[in-house]
Amino acid sequence: MSDFLSRILTEIKPLDRKAMEAAKVRQDKLTKPKGSLGRLEELSIQVAGIKGKVIHSLEHKAIVTMAADHGVVSEGVSAYPQGVTGQMVFNFLNGGAGINILARFIGARVVVVDMGTVGDLPPHPNLICKKIAYGTKNMAREAAMSHSEAMKSIEAGIEIVEDEIAKGLDIVGTGDMGIGNTTASSAICAAITGEPVEELTGRGTGLANKQLAHKVEVIQKVLELNKPDPRDPIDVLAKVGGFEIGGLAGVMLGAAAHRVPVVVDGFISGAAALIAAKLSPRLKDYLIAAHLSAESGHKALLQYLGLMPLLDLRMRLGEGTGAALGIALVEAAVKTLAEMATFAEAGITKEKH
Amino acid sequence: MSDFLSRILTEIKPLDRKAMEAAKVRQDKLTKPKGSLGRLEELSIQVAGIKGKVIHSLEHKAIVTMAADHGVVSEGVSAYPQGVTGQMVFNFLNGGAGINILARFIGARVVVVDMGTVGDLPPHPNLICKKIAYGTKNMAREAAMSHSEAMKSIEAGIEIVEDEIAKGLDIVGTGDMGIGNTTASSAICAAITGEPVEELTGRGTGLANKQLAHKVEVIQKVLELNKPDPRDPIDVLAKVGGFEIGGLAGVMLGAAAHRVPVVVDGFISGAAALIAAKLSPRLKDYLIAAHLSAESGHKALLQYLGLMPLLDLRMRLGEGTGAALGIALVEAAVKTLAEMATFAEAGITKEKH
Repeated sequence: MSDFLSRILTEIKPLDRKAMEAAKVRQDKLTKPKGSLGRLEELSIQVAGIKGKVIHSLEHKAIVTMAADHGVVSEGVSAYPQGVTGQMVFNFLNGGAGINILARFIGARVVVVDMGTVGDLPPHPNLICKKIAYGTKNMAREAAMSHSEAMKSIEAGIEIVEDEIAKGLDIVGTGDMGIGNTTASSAICAAITGEPVEELTGRGTGLANKQLAHKVEVIQKVLELNKPDPRDPIDVLAKVGGFEIGGLAGVMLGAAAHRVPVVVDGFISGAAALIAAKLSPRLKDYLIAAHLSAESGHKALLQYLGLMPLLDLRMRLGEGTGAALGIALVEAAVKTLAEMATFAEAGITKEKH
Repeated sequence: MSDFLSRILTEIKPLDRKAMEAAKVRQDKLTKPKGSLGRLEELSIQVAGIKGKVIHSLEHKAIVTMAADHGVVSEGVSAYPQGVTGQMVFNFLNGGAGINILARFIGARVVVVDMGTVGDLPPHPNLICKKIAYGTKNMAREAAMSHSEAMKSIEAGIEIVEDEIAKGLDIVGTGDMGIGNTTASSAICAAITGEPVEELTGRGTGLANKQLAHKVEVIQKVLELNKPDPRDPIDVLAKVGGFEIGGLAGVMLGAAAHRVPVVVDGFISGAAALIAAKLSPRLKDYLIAAHLSAESGHKALLQYLGLMPLLDLRMRLGEGTGAALGIALVEAAVKTLAEMATFAEAGITKEKH
């Protein structure tokens, strides 16, 4: 492990229990029956623990959407051709994708990163280029990437989130784009959780039954060939992962090291969280699972992480679209804690018992 | 039934299938795998059917929060004293309650209505007074209200939403405040659905086990004494309802008659929806269930109505707090449909099959 990554991991500290207690005390003074805002109350307390204090707003919000290509698509595991990854990056930069609309809706900026698409994307003022390579190798024949590339992808993610923190960042959401990346995510999930591949593999962008069966076979072959070591998350990432997945793991670790809450999108971001949480057992406290994706396997993944999704809207678009909606709920939680009147302020009688 | 209510009921038309088809066609052209925005896509299609066209925004949003008192509280069914209803109305007017914070967060106005609190609230520019009576009667001894009062409460709700529509209203959320109103709501729900009272009765603002058992007994007594006729929703409202519940039923009917989508809050709003949907079988298409309340019975209530909640955050505050979060999701749905680029616009390859 690099010195840079080691340092970041040691900077991920436990949540601030005193701040959480202060948030809880304030929640119980607000003009509502105790606990009646349910998960909004829990979120407000978690955010206080992350920030080290009760905060009043989430002014600076960003979704980091990372794109990369996957050599394994040559095995016929996706309903879309590989060129769509780069085309969608343009769509992100032009503001026409789902994540652009939802990020604007919640007042967040979208940080678009090329972590390793197959083509050379023309420079654009809003495109961050951290290309580790021109797509991963076909992991059905060899490791997706080298150990060094896996490390680099994580470090690139840390650098990106640190740059965003320098600009102002109160909360970050994760997002992905990469034709073939549900295949890599299912492989990571199977390697780390040990659950059967069939149960962790879904239709991605829209496979039919026969294609889904083929995808399962490909992932089984990938795992048999590469034998990723579940105790070594860098090994898992290198053998069966993707550059955007490594990058998102880095975003999560870097954000946690700087006490920034991370709203995790769907299945691909979840796979990144599996890698990152294996590197830092404390990371989990900094994560908020935005939603349960319609992609099979996401439920088992979240259960393994011990995260409970906020939303279940049968979404499966990725890009950070679920994270955007999740951030809105976290902001609602922060604002209710900060802005509601207490019983004393409002002159209201408390409950009888 | 009054001529006014009859007219409103005849004005509730089927959804516009052509507008829904246009919305569906557009959804399938947007730069995402078909169906990958899940329930957001369904919401966008429902809203198009309600409005009669694909709309681009929800500029004018309101939460109508109706307050009233309940004579049945003298049976000891609530953890809070009756005076809290009026105190909370002041809190709404002063902007310190949960609903104020969440409405401001989503850009909605809060319309505060006194439908029948026990005291005389001093006039306030933002308080709408539609007091039907100084609280309902104790329904453990007699009918909660007269048939005429039940009609008046529904008509008051229609008038209020029509006034709001005159000011501009693209979507409305419902909210309630009334110490004792989970008791009335459970009674309505039992009368209409025929499910056992025990399964429809919850802890309200926070009853302990013994108090909950007592509440169940009181509701059983209420139903035996009053024998509300499940085929006659006005009879149910009159015998075991509340003024805010009748008012909210009116808001829903009036909104539907003017093709305004209604985001239904939790258990009390759900009881109002039961009354309203019995009056107009077409109403359901205009309703969007914001969330599953932590109050027991809400799940059965929503199943009876055939509504699937958008959120499940263990909230049970009422006031319209769940509706506010639901409106944000509907707005996200409307904006993705209106603003996302199509495959053709973005120059992106569609799926292979």
